Amino acid sequence: MAERAALEELVKLQGERVRGLKQQKASAELIEEEVGKLLKLKAQLGPDESKQKFVLKTPKGTRDYSPRQMAVREKVFDVIIRCFKRHGAEVIDTPVFELKETLMGKYGEDSKLIYDLKDQGGELLSLRYDLTVPFARYLAMNKLTNIKRYHIAKDFDIAGNFDPMIPDAECLKIMCEILSSLQIGDFLVKVNDRRILDGMFAICGVSDSKFRTICSSVDKLDKVSWEEVKNEMVGEKGLAPEVADRIGDYVQQHGGVSLVEQLLQDPKLSQNKQALEGLGDLKLLFEYLTLFGIDDKISFDLSLARGLDYYTGVIYEAVLLQTPAQAGEEPLGVGSVAAGGRYDGLVGMFDPKGRKVPCVGLSIGVERIFSIVEQRLEALEEKVRTTETQVLVASAQKKLLEERLKLVSELWDAGIKAELLYKKNPKLLNQLQYCEEAGIPLVAIIGEQELKDGVIKLRSVTSREEVNVRREDLVEEIKRRTGQPLCIC
Amino acid sequence: MAERAALEELVKLQGERVRGLKQQKASAELIEEEVGKLLKLKAQLGPDESKQKFVLKTPKGTRDYSPRQMAVREKVFDVIIRCFKRHGAEVIDTPVFELKETLMGKYGEDSKLIYDLKDQGGELLSLRYDLTVPFARYLAMNKLTNIKRYHIAKDFDIAGNFDPMIPDAECLKIMCEILSSLQIGDFLVKVNDRRILDGMFAICGVSDSKFRTICSSVDKLDKVSWEEVKNEMVGEKGLAPEVADRIGDYVQQHGGVSLVEQLLQDPKLSQNKQALEGLGDLKLLFEYLTLFGIDDKISFDLSLARGLDYYTGVIYEAVLLQTPAQAGEEPLGVGSVAAGGRYDGLVGMFDPKGRKVPCVGLSIGVERIFSIVEQRLEALEEKVRTTETQVLVASAQKKLLEERLKLVSELWDAGIKAELLYKKNPKLLNQLQYCEEAGIPLVAIIGEQELKDGVIKLRSVTSREEVNVRREDLVEEIKRRTGQPLCIC
Repeated sequence: MAERAALEELVKLQGERVRGLKQQKASAELIEEEVGKLLKLKAQLGPDESKQKFVLKTPKGTRDYSPRQMAVREKVFDVIIRCFKRHGAEVIDTPVFELKETLMGKYGEDSKLIYDLKDQGGELLSLRYDLTVPFARYLAMNKLTNIKRYHIAKDFDIAGNFDPMIPDAECLKIMCEILSSLQIGDFLVKVNDRRILDGMFAICGVSDSKFRTICSSVDKLDKVSWEEVKNEMVGEKGLAPEVADRIGDYVQQHGGVSLVEQLLQDPKLSQNKQALEGLGDLKLLFEYLTLFGIDDKISFDLSLARGLDYYTGVIYEAVLLQTPAQAGEEPLGVGSVAAGGRYDGLVGMFDPKGRKVPCVGLSIGVERIFSIVEQRLEALEEKVRTTETQVLVASAQKKLLEERLKLVSELWDAGIKAELLYKKNPKLLNQLQYCEEAGIPLVAIIGEQELKDGVIKLRSVTSREEVNVRREDLVEEIKRRTGQPLCIC
Repeated sequence: MAERAALEELVKLQGERVRGLKQQKASAELIEEEVGKLLKLKAQLGPDESKQKFVLKTPKGTRDYSPRQMAVREKVFDVIIRCFKRHGAEVIDTPVFELKETLMGKYGEDSKLIYDLKDQGGELLSLRYDLTVPFARYLAMNKLTNIKRYHIAKDFDIAGNFDPMIPDAECLKIMCEILSSLQIGDFLVKVNDRRILDGMFAICGVSDSKFRTICSSVDKLDKVSWEEVKNEMVGEKGLAPEVADRIGDYVQQHGGVSLVEQLLQDPKLSQNKQALEGLGDLKLLFEYLTLFGIDDKISFDLSLARGLDYYTGVIYEAVLLQTPAQAGEEPLGVGSVAAGGRYDGLVGMFDPKGRKVPCVGLSIGVERIFSIVEQRLEALEEKVRTTETQVLVASAQKKLLEERLKLVSELWDAGIKAELLYKKNPKLLNQLQYCEEAGIPLVAIIGEQELKDGVIKLRSVTSREEVNVRREDLVEEIKRRTGQPLCIC
């Protein structure tokens, strides 16, 4: 094991040397030589040996959660979060790691239990130890002095041996459903197949050992011109210019199922077993996509290559289409918002006997989507409520704190999301202003007279209409007005 | 969510290591030495210096999410998760970090972007880079060959300057609401105040510099006997036996508001300014807790000390009460399931000008609660559904894959949670068995005749009752039968 780790470290180091050399534009021969050394080292590692020595486990002190455990977990979290919301809490989130100095000197004797990240030549980082210190750092950084908050945490995969392309088609359907529901503008899903790419490289005359590195050059075609990609292939990666040109003829094509049909007739490509398999599967995929009604969203794009090593079949990537600039909106820019593909070999790399589990999946680019949605909301100057509070329990006179506490407690116990100001004698005007700012729709006002009559004054914040409701009917009336279904969901 | 769980597990394990060392009676001097080193380091940091030099930021490449951003994030996640569920996906979760060797050799040129954890003398760990490699490791480790899944912390705080004890009382109310809703048995919330503890230590004759370390000895009283705690105080921490005995007389007391009143009359304690403040606040707190109807759940316990340095006022900890062992159930054991307190100084430690933001909060021990809920469910042999699929689209004859794909797509688009078997020609029996195993309540069966008549046969899995439904009425009928409200919530 130690040997392997050492060898692997060497491989990594060598890799870094190679990259360094490349940047210095060192001669292509030298690179070839270094790459050769690397491949030899890699060969020494040998896949079979590693399979026997590899210990399949999670780190000490950590665990996985199975679907059954997660179902329980979700129910538990649901109870907790519903309660936090009932009490008018907002949500915040902070990174998993913090600057080491943020955590230092806060935990007393517990400090020695904090995990530090390896120095990557930048900042000294530690994994967060609790959520309280990051929360305090957040308040100080944002100069916040008032908040009630809670702290809470994207990939879909289908694993199994199934009839071809049915799960793959569902993954694409899911991608389209999500992107449509999010209403972030028109989009296109580019589709290709690793086997078509490999077949194409083979018939164009790329040597096997260069498939992956040429693949990552091709993948840049959505950002830079073909000329630049060709320069990289020829200048940096040592490809013959005529080989690069042959690749260029293919990878600049895109279209629908008709392009699949056309390539199935291509005299060279159709002679390559791998490419033929890939094209056959894509044809079947397009049939299913038509049945799902999403074929108009899909483009077969021979330049789509995807960076990661583990893909083995169909690959896809969703991009937002540049919308004609709307008034008051920054142009969003074209970019990938979801991606995925088939990876039939990855599970086998972990299995001691190399047993394969075919998998296909997708990942949603939530960070990018958040920025887009946020940008849209800002452009529209739309107000976003950060709590779900239905009613503020208020009082019109002084000395009614006890009565407010009793009423808010009754409402919480009945499942109503309610708040009160944490002040002994708040002014009614301040209580109403708080509702306006927080978007709380209702105010339940307690007064001396109302207490005597056994009623509560229920006020609508927007219409300013007030009506006396019998205390025993208050919960039902709030539920009716806020459209909360009778079941708690 | 996952991150915190993993971290908590780690902290727990590390805590066990420390306890293990102690239990092995490894020389107390060694521990003292380590603690001494730590305290020196802390002194070097010095609060004033750190305030001037400290850069208040998150690590490079990370960001915080404000309540507004989180509200957007939640809506986005809601759309995504609702879609995944509509397609019958289960949820799994894996730790934030993996063994370094698990991630090695899977990402090609991206490998250099992986964060490694500092070697803590154990395993070599890296932060996960995506969710696909951990997923593949999970499948191989659990020998799973079939799954459709998706991958996706728990603290509540109120910050701000408010009238005394109102937010503190709400935190305790929240704790009680959550523990009652979870139905994990009877519980008790122990309450104390750091100021009472400090005042008590002062009048008992503990020197200021030993307050914190004596505090952590006292905190062990829920696990070990007073004799053992006393031995630690005297033997390891160098307290005079008579001082320890004086502490013992106080910390072995617990009770309700009457104990607060009694201590307010204590000739020594009532002369200490800090203790008097703490007792006054606790008296007020008990008034509010009575209005919230939870005073019977609260116990003023002078032995409650809480480990972390940052608490400044009221502190609390909820414990489950040993229930009389039920048939078929393992005794659950008494233990903390939620805890928190007031920390008025922590934000000021981060603020360049030392501005204070008073805070009070709570944290739910979700890991412990999960184990308890899981154990209960196992004892009851209760089946837990891991998907929410409402209907399986099936066919009675061969060659109906296209029709199944069309129908399931219609149902997805209408918001119905639906699945189909990824097989060209599945047997009806296999389709029905799948429903039984997965707990899917309905089957929509397509047949040649039904297609001609424009109907779908809708079958209830439990009653085996079948009825023909007009295709245009199918969505409404499924919603009606599965009690899905008309709004999508």
